[in-house]
Amino acid sequence: MSTTSESIARTARQAGNVLKTISNEERSKLLYKIHDGLKANAELIRKANILDLENAKKNGLADSLFKRLDLFKGDKFDTMLQGVKDVADLEDPVGKVKLARELDEGLTLYQITAPVGVLLVIFESRPEVIANITSLSIKSGNAAILKGGKESINTFREISDIIKRVISENEKITGIPQGAIQLIETRQDVSDLLCQDDYIDLVVPRGSNALVKQIKSSTKIPVLGHADGICSIYVDEDADLEKAERILLDAKTSYPAGCNAVETILINPKFSKWWIALESLSRKGNVVLHVTDDLKDAFFHELDKAGRMDGFIKEHTVDVNEEVDFDKEFLSLDCAVKFVSTVNEAVNHINEHSSKHTDAIITENEEHAEYFLKGIDSSGVYWNASTRFADGFRYGFGTEVGISTSKIHARGPVGLDGLVTYQYQIRGQGQIASDYIGSGGKKAFIHKDIDLSKVSL
Amino acid sequence: MSTTSESIARTARQAGNVLKTISNEERSKLLYKIHDGLKANAELIRKANILDLENAKKNGLADSLFKRLDLFKGDKFDTMLQGVKDVADLEDPVGKVKLARELDEGLTLYQITAPVGVLLVIFESRPEVIANITSLSIKSGNAAILKGGKESINTFREISDIIKRVISENEKITGIPQGAIQLIETRQDVSDLLCQDDYIDLVVPRGSNALVKQIKSSTKIPVLGHADGICSIYVDEDADLEKAERILLDAKTSYPAGCNAVETILINPKFSKWWIALESLSRKGNVVLHVTDDLKDAFFHELDKAGRMDGFIKEHTVDVNEEVDFDKEFLSLDCAVKFVSTVNEAVNHINEHSSKHTDAIITENEEHAEYFLKGIDSSGVYWNASTRFADGFRYGFGTEVGISTSKIHARGPVGLDGLVTYQYQIRGQGQIASDYIGSGGKKAFIHKDIDLSKVSL
Repeated sequence: MSTTSESIARTARQAGNVLKTISNEERSKLLYKIHDGLKANAELIRKANILDLENAKKNGLADSLFKRLDLFKGDKFDTMLQGVKDVADLEDPVGKVKLARELDEGLTLYQITAPVGVLLVIFESRPEVIANITSLSIKSGNAAILKGGKESINTFREISDIIKRVISENEKITGIPQGAIQLIETRQDVSDLLCQDDYIDLVVPRGSNALVKQIKSSTKIPVLGHADGICSIYVDEDADLEKAERILLDAKTSYPAGCNAVETILINPKFSKWWIALESLSRKGNVVLHVTDDLKDAFFHELDKAGRMDGFIKEHTVDVNEEVDFDKEFLSLDCAVKFVSTVNEAVNHINEHSSKHTDAIITENEEHAEYFLKGIDSSGVYWNASTRFADGFRYGFGTEVGISTSKIHARGPVGLDGLVTYQYQIRGQGQIASDYIGSGGKKAFIHKDIDLSKVSL
Repeated sequence: MSTTSESIARTARQAGNVLKTISNEERSKLLYKIHDGLKANAELIRKANILDLENAKKNGLADSLFKRLDLFKGDKFDTMLQGVKDVADLEDPVGKVKLARELDEGLTLYQITAPVGVLLVIFESRPEVIANITSLSIKSGNAAILKGGKESINTFREISDIIKRVISENEKITGIPQGAIQLIETRQDVSDLLCQDDYIDLVVPRGSNALVKQIKSSTKIPVLGHADGICSIYVDEDADLEKAERILLDAKTSYPAGCNAVETILINPKFSKWWIALESLSRKGNVVLHVTDDLKDAFFHELDKAGRMDGFIKEHTVDVNEEVDFDKEFLSLDCAVKFVSTVNEAVNHINEHSSKHTDAIITENEEHAEYFLKGIDSSGVYWNASTRFADGFRYGFGTEVGISTSKIHARGPVGLDGLVTYQYQIRGQGQIASDYIGSGGKKAFIHKDIDLSKVSL
């Protein structure tokens, strides 16, 4: 544990304690100032970004990664700037009254949303992310320590210098201290900070599964993130063929690298047209099906009967490795497929093998659907809809902090809500507990909930 | 990691997956059956309890602990039985719709409460607790693995045998499998189970601080509990003397061993009558004040001036150990006391030293109070009320699972709500994501929230 990391974490904690008391108006005002600062210094940022691009070229970075580094490609920079203002304009996530209860006359309990405190956010090389994370953190009243991918280090430094300067120049007006946003640069810094569980409240890794797994295994601080996205779709005996075809194609092929893409298909063979859905997934989607022996036999048999068996299908149907493939996130045009004989068997398979991300049933049978919706232990459970809907934008969260597969605090796509927690406030007039029944006194509690629309604090 | 612990955890997970699908009616019905089973077998339980009491006597257990073991003292057994029915009659914590949003025509998103899954609950020797925890777990749809203090082992075994028998006899009716409640007996079992983070979702230790600390440091599973209760009260310059006297006395002396008792008092010396509040705490409450040098001088000076300095006060005023005492949970009639010169200084002291449990301000100054309520980073922040109100019964939660000092998931006194999480359900008609804007399609999302009073699932 280095002194530096302790001092960074302590600075963040102190800034977080101040930030917690700042009004939404001031937090939003600062975001507008940050927007203006980034806009006014676009040329400095462009120079830094060109440096990163040149280094990437020298280091022979893959083309797809290279494109991500270019902050001035198309309208990316303007979109980033607009994003800062969009977050500023969101409803205040802090100070929302979630419960108001009269404990006794003049003694009222409130449950109120409050910032989590100090965030450690780790993200990859897309340079625009730093502005997004900064906005989300400040808007939600949290101090943040940021670490971006090393390929964009010059851009990150420049942007973070500008942000710090803006915060500092406006400290007297907004009250928000400079330590509210800090940039760190090395993996060693991250490792050191993961030990600062006295100061840091939540780690948000946005990046590869390997990164998330490694972080989860090396810290006691709660981690908001998803290590795997092993999503399943169960095609029930009472499925509608058209829905099955469309949903499977969308869920597998529209963005195979997405964490909400389907990786496992469970087929109930009592659905007589099941093989058509698979055939269509393969032919239209170019998907390779990793299938069990019994399913392969039945699949080929049906295709033979229909006179539709050919080389393409043979090439796109391979033997599944049952030990591995049902726990695998392919992230490619591959899919593990097997038969299950009931919705119950499907639920059991999914609860054992899925990563608790998002799973769907395709059926017209309400009873089966309700059982599936109740039985699946994942953050998202869908009936007749593609798993690809698991996304903050699609859920209407305005902005997405990440997707969580942990079971407590925040689950699924996480908006600003995931960056706040709550506190209980009591406002009294000098009341003491020992006056009440249960602690030696005679007064009874009223415990009368107050209509939240009538509460203003 | 022993095979036994893995098999216990796996059994619990499977039972939890089933329990998740069981209706509130069946869960409550089972609790009534458990009530009946315990009542009918009172004599068996009494015999086991007598065995524990005899062993305790042999082992020379302290009198106060001995009393806690006696399940048939007064109406304790009947209260325990009534508690099972009371939990059965609570509102269903599972399946509550917290958000309903039309994403598009015929495509609806719901956020719905769901059981956490598998709980590992560790508690001390009070024999009645096992029935309470069993009720809370089943009511909230969670499977539970229970470990009680060894002094009540015979009583726990008997009660858990009866519970298992009742669950098993009613499995065909209620659908709840026997694995829903399992008892483990040794500390080794606990250590082994703390490694089963694939199967166990939440650890709830109810017991000594040492126990909670040890568990927190030895598991990756989230822990719901409080290691320390270092609560502070700040007596502001605009405090009301009578309120200060009453609240300090109640918060320190009504139950000094409670985690919500005050341990640190911060005094603003601009409040001219501060010394009277301390004098009264000492004389009426027999409290030993651990004070800083400057406070001692001022305190004695004021008492001298008023002609009220005497041996009692001298005996009850000792030098504080500044390095240690402001981070200490005395759990006795002792209190650390110092001066702070502003509400801001008080907030900073508390955010640095308190255990984020419950802290209070005594003041008639609204501005100071609002600043304190906003600035303090603890689960409970009170204005003119005793910290002793931090309690599930007093908050009106019906029943208390525990008190949490962690900052995410559940904070403060935790009722049944702390044993549930949420899931997102989507109910669609075959919609796919790539039809929508942002994923290559042209359809726009509606994102229209539905009035929850009109939602029935």
